[in-house]
Amino acid sequence: MVAAIATIPKTQKAQITSKFGLETELTEIPVPEPKDDELLVHLLYSGVCHSDVTVMKNNPPIPTPLSLPNVAGHEGAGIVVKIGKEVTGFEEGERVGVAVAKWGTFQEYITVSALHAHKIPDGVDLAKAAPTQCAGLTVYRALKETNTRPGQFVAINGAAGGLGSFGLQLAKAMGLRAIAIDFGQAKQDHCLRQGAEFFIDAQNQNVVEEMLKVTNGCGPHGVINVAPAAKPLEDALLYVRKTGTIVIVGLPTDGKFSVDTNLMVFKGITIKGTLLGSREDMAEVLQFLARGLIDIPIEIMGLSELPDAFKRLDNCQVKGRIVLDTSK
Amino acid sequence: MVAAIATIPKTQKAQITSKFGLETELTEIPVPEPKDDELLVHLLYSGVCHSDVTVMKNNPPIPTPLSLPNVAGHEGAGIVVKIGKEVTGFEEGERVGVAVAKWGTFQEYITVSALHAHKIPDGVDLAKAAPTQCAGLTVYRALKETNTRPGQFVAINGAAGGLGSFGLQLAKAMGLRAIAIDFGQAKQDHCLRQGAEFFIDAQNQNVVEEMLKVTNGCGPHGVINVAPAAKPLEDALLYVRKTGTIVIVGLPTDGKFSVDTNLMVFKGITIKGTLLGSREDMAEVLQFLARGLIDIPIEIMGLSELPDAFKRLDNCQVKGRIVLDTSK
Amino acid sequence: MVAAIATIPKTQKAQITSKFGLETELTEIPVPEPKDDELLVHLLYSGVCHSDVTVMKNNPPIPTPLSLPNVAGHEGAGIVVKIGKEVTGFEEGERVGVAVAKWGTFQEYITVSALHAHKIPDGVDLAKAAPTQCAGLTVYRALKETNTRPGQFVAINGAAGGLGSFGLQLAKAMGLRAIAIDFGQAKQDHCLRQGAEFFIDAQNQNVVEEMLKVTNGCGPHGVINVAPAAKPLEDALLYVRKTGTIVIVGLPTDGKFSVDTNLMVFKGITIKGTLLGSREDMAEVLQFLARGLIDIPIEIMGLSELPDAFKRLDNCQVKGRIVLDTSK
Amino acid sequence: MVAAIATIPKTQKAQITSKFGLETELTEIPVPEPKDDELLVHLLYSGVCHSDVTVMKNNPPIPTPLSLPNVAGHEGAGIVVKIGKEVTGFEEGERVGVAVAKWGTFQEYITVSALHAHKIPDGVDLAKAAPTQCAGLTVYRALKETNTRPGQFVAINGAAGGLGSFGLQLAKAMGLRAIAIDFGQAKQDHCLRQGAEFFIDAQNQNVVEEMLKVTNGCGPHGVINVAPAAKPLEDALLYVRKTGTIVIVGLPTDGKFSVDTNLMVFKGITIKGTLLGSREDMAEVLQFLARGLIDIPIEIMGLSELPDAFKRLDNCQVKGRIVLDTSK
Repeated sequence: MVAAIATIPKTQKAQITSKFGLETELTEIPVPEPKDDELLVHLLYSGVCHSDVTVMKNNPPIPTPLSLPNVAGHEGAGIVVKIGKEVTGFEEGERVGVAVAKWGTFQEYITVSALHAHKIPDGVDLAKAAPTQCAGLTVYRALKETNTRPGQFVAINGAAGGLGSFGLQLAKAMGLRAIAIDFGQAKQDHCLRQGAEFFIDAQNQNVVEEMLKVTNGCGPHGVINVAPAAKPLEDALLYVRKTGTIVIVGLPTDGKFSVDTNLMVFKGITIKGTLLGSREDMAEVLQFLARGLIDIPIEIMGLSELPDAFKRLDNCQVKGRIVLDTSK
Repeated sequence: MVAAIATIPKTQKAQITSKFGLETELTEIPVPEPKDDELLVHLLYSGVCHSDVTVMKNNPPIPTPLSLPNVAGHEGAGIVVKIGKEVTGFEEGERVGVAVAKWGTFQEYITVSALHAHKIPDGVDLAKAAPTQCAGLTVYRALKETNTRPGQFVAINGAAGGLGSFGLQLAKAMGLRAIAIDFGQAKQDHCLRQGAEFFIDAQNQNVVEEMLKVTNGCGPHGVINVAPAAKPLEDALLYVRKTGTIVIVGLPTDGKFSVDTNLMVFKGITIKGTLLGSREDMAEVLQFLARGLIDIPIEIMGLSELPDAFKRLDNCQVKGRIVLDTSK
Repeated sequence: MVAAIATIPKTQKAQITSKFGLETELTEIPVPEPKDDELLVHLLYSGVCHSDVTVMKNNPPIPTPLSLPNVAGHEGAGIVVKIGKEVTGFEEGERVGVAVAKWGTFQEYITVSALHAHKIPDGVDLAKAAPTQCAGLTVYRALKETNTRPGQFVAINGAAGGLGSFGLQLAKAMGLRAIAIDFGQAKQDHCLRQGAEFFIDAQNQNVVEEMLKVTNGCGPHGVINVAPAAKPLEDALLYVRKTGTIVIVGLPTDGKFSVDTNLMVFKGITIKGTLLGSREDMAEVLQFLARGLIDIPIEIMGLSELPDAFKRLDNCQVKGRIVLDTSK
Repeated sequence: MVAAIATIPKTQKAQITSKFGLETELTEIPVPEPKDDELLVHLLYSGVCHSDVTVMKNNPPIPTPLSLPNVAGHEGAGIVVKIGKEVTGFEEGERVGVAVAKWGTFQEYITVSALHAHKIPDGVDLAKAAPTQCAGLTVYRALKETNTRPGQFVAINGAAGGLGSFGLQLAKAMGLRAIAIDFGQAKQDHCLRQGAEFFIDAQNQNVVEEMLKVTNGCGPHGVINVAPAAKPLEDALLYVRKTGTIVIVGLPTDGKFSVDTNLMVFKGITIKGTLLGSREDMAEVLQFLARGLIDIPIEIMGLSELPDAFKRLDNCQVKGRIVLDTSK
């Protein structure tokens, strides 16, 4: 599906970060020129990820070599409007997702290497495609890394957030039986709607006991931790099934957790860390989206409202994913 | 190869443990009768494993439900002398290894389920077959669990001991490039003779730095920890190659170690616990032994010398494996 | 779920085969006694499989060493009514599936080794559990052997029969996108109801062309052939995706097919043969059944009607699976 | 290791093919200029592969869209002498292998995409590095595709040729037990020197019987067919171990072979086609070469002697691999 291209303006709006913290300033800056191996993409939407908050507060688990001022954001979706002369395989007007390792999607136009642009299948809402570029990709990869097969149980810690919600839906689409762990009734309702077969309330229930109860006493075959805490990982060693796998995605605030080596050896447990995913993984996530098997719950705000979005994320007041409409 | 069977005596010598500690008493006890699904094996040799010491001192990482008095030992090799009437696939005079989960090889005769008896290929020295039944099996399984391929690097922590020595030889037979880590010149000489390509002295060298140096800056693809300590595991996270695997065999004394989750995620590391192995693994280890590709260094002592053997093991004064000759 | 056990009678009805062919004779024979390691099962239902017909006609691809007279049938389900004294893990009144390698389920009572009895989860209809014991197990294993992942395409040749119908439902439950190939409108309707996403009519359509059309020009990732013919296998080499896998379940009548080695090498294709499956596979199939994700279409006939059932199967007049009620 | 670069000449010698057949003409042609993403490599050596002969005779299994006149050859090794301005990661004077999908190594200078250039480790003889670029890579990949583990048996059909010799050596380095199949005493001597543990003479021995004899009656776990014939593949189905894997590399002259589906299903056999390998595979092969674990037997001829080399290859008169010295 190729859209007609409007004229490319000389300048654009961008949310500029000048000093660490959750404040940004909406500024008019030049639209960049793509290099020979790059695309210029008119971003229509950009997801807001919790790791943006972490980076903005200059508190990432591993220091990022940021140079300020700069533009944050790393989950974009939009239209190819100009193509570097050495790029093949893309045409103007094509819809692409943009996953960028460096900063950059909180603006209207971005240049990216063709390697970081992913074609969006027809029928996929661009606003929903944006958060697949990091959250969807990461949790899909994590689900694969559990080595679980259709029909097996996978537990997701921190299931009600952006990654978790994606994870519950993808798990269901993959034939897995998802068990959500999070806090409170509102998150329970949300998780069950996303496809969780069971919900365990970490506030009111004994997680280990409940987990064994809903899995016929054997524990889940796989566990994904997207919560930024150590306790859920330590619990997971207790309840994961013999020879099961625990995948670390969320990073505990103090950067470590204590592994019980007796449990590891006598239960034959595997623990893995994982980060992002491959181009093939991304294409597969987008296919699930195109087929309507996943439908990430989003809340659209304007690009100008980014500081508000940051504050709500920082206070854990977001269910699903906030996506910014760059035209507003 | 089937040997002629001597008359089965009524009584036999056994090393009896009456109270926890490293003392045993050589006693004359009855030779047992095999049940319908069991074999009676005349044990000629029995390996002495570090976990025997741990159990004798009643200090295992996970409490064993022992009933004293009893006979310890779990790595035996001998001759089938009587066969339960429902057992198929064995004949009298056959040579078998005996891997027992419960106590029992520090005596002359033992009854075992046919499922725990492994035929010893022709040409294999029974004295060397004994320690394969636990040490060889365990470290072979651990090598498999690293998911390394021929030509890749595998580091073994605590390489000069019984498991480690087996591991170095098996690694070489499997086309792996083994890097031994242990203490001091004597152990260095020993490890290089066992097939290690490199030795890193944990006493005098910076293990992480050295490890990167001998692996072209990338670290080993796999790491096996047979040392009963946490520090080597924490080091392994630092030096293991990106997407590499660390296998836990030895159990840290205090039953835990601290995992750096940032390293886990950003390097995509896998950590696994493993215990023993399958019947197929055992058959494969015995084939390596039969082909002369591994030749476990043993030191033969008499069954009557068990208390001495225990003391030396407890003081880390053993290279390779002590094997008891039950006739002495 | 444990049922109360009625008194075990001295004699029972059995369908006896006295000479090769599709005739059997309903006869009164003694109820057998279980050996020490066996269970006596009161069979309530027995599936009728196409391979029974093949064996009855003495025309199996590999000659079976049959001794006549005998009782055929190998997919049973019923109640444990007596337990050999060495069997552990079962109790009287338990519901079990019976998968027997030798003849035997076309009767009311059968003795089986405990290794060939599979517990049926609560809530599963015994009449539907019967055909899982061979058909369900075989096609589930075949689906696993395709090495396809959720979201990928799998084509099933001969999709409207017993194995095929199971395959379509299991594929859907496993997150796979199933493409059914068979003949005619009635089978098309049936296949789409079983969960096929697409149907290709081998009578009216160019299978290779259609297959590429419904898979975006790339072909399915996996193919399962349950049809007893060579042509579908030769076609599969043409349409299977690069590096895809073709699994042979159905046996071509003349026992062979011609492999195009250029296609094999330039497309990097894998071809596998597979037969039955493991105990773990069986437990997984039964779980899918218990969860209501598969619901094998069955037609219940009486044990006395076995000769009719054979004739209909022999004439390919059966959709889904015929299951015999042994009480009729 | 970086060599000093001599001045790049304006013209070079090349073996030009003007019409299909085994005749070429040594001609003076211009040295090409690398594009921005290419390297100019001064080829010192070029392997001569049997598929060059097939292509020259215009008799490949799948027609190659050749445009004549042209330069054949696809296994080169030499020195980087000029670097396109967008290429990163290479420097002038570096030693590289050149694996080209299109024609081109039977000349002194070639331009290649940086993606097709592989750095040659220090200590590796460039003349031996050349044939790794296709023969070594292909057979290494095939060995991997057998899914065999160290200690298992792998049979190689056509073991005395270029690919086969590489295969025997690599198998040994990988801890596999190689069984060579070929014709006659001279090839037997050659194969045993390359590392084969057993040799079966397809001329004088019953291959299936012998194969079972040397593998304790069970057959090899994997089979690689590098012979351009169907018979060895049909035999392989008979002798391969249950659940074993047969890998097709050599293409039967008439492009097909007959698969016995009963053997496939009842033995659970896997058959795979494979072609070339990955960049990672290539790096691994070069490491085995650098470590001295493989030492491909080569015979050096001059570039001017190419027509003779072709004739000898066409008549199967070559053991190991012919490598051309482009300076002669």
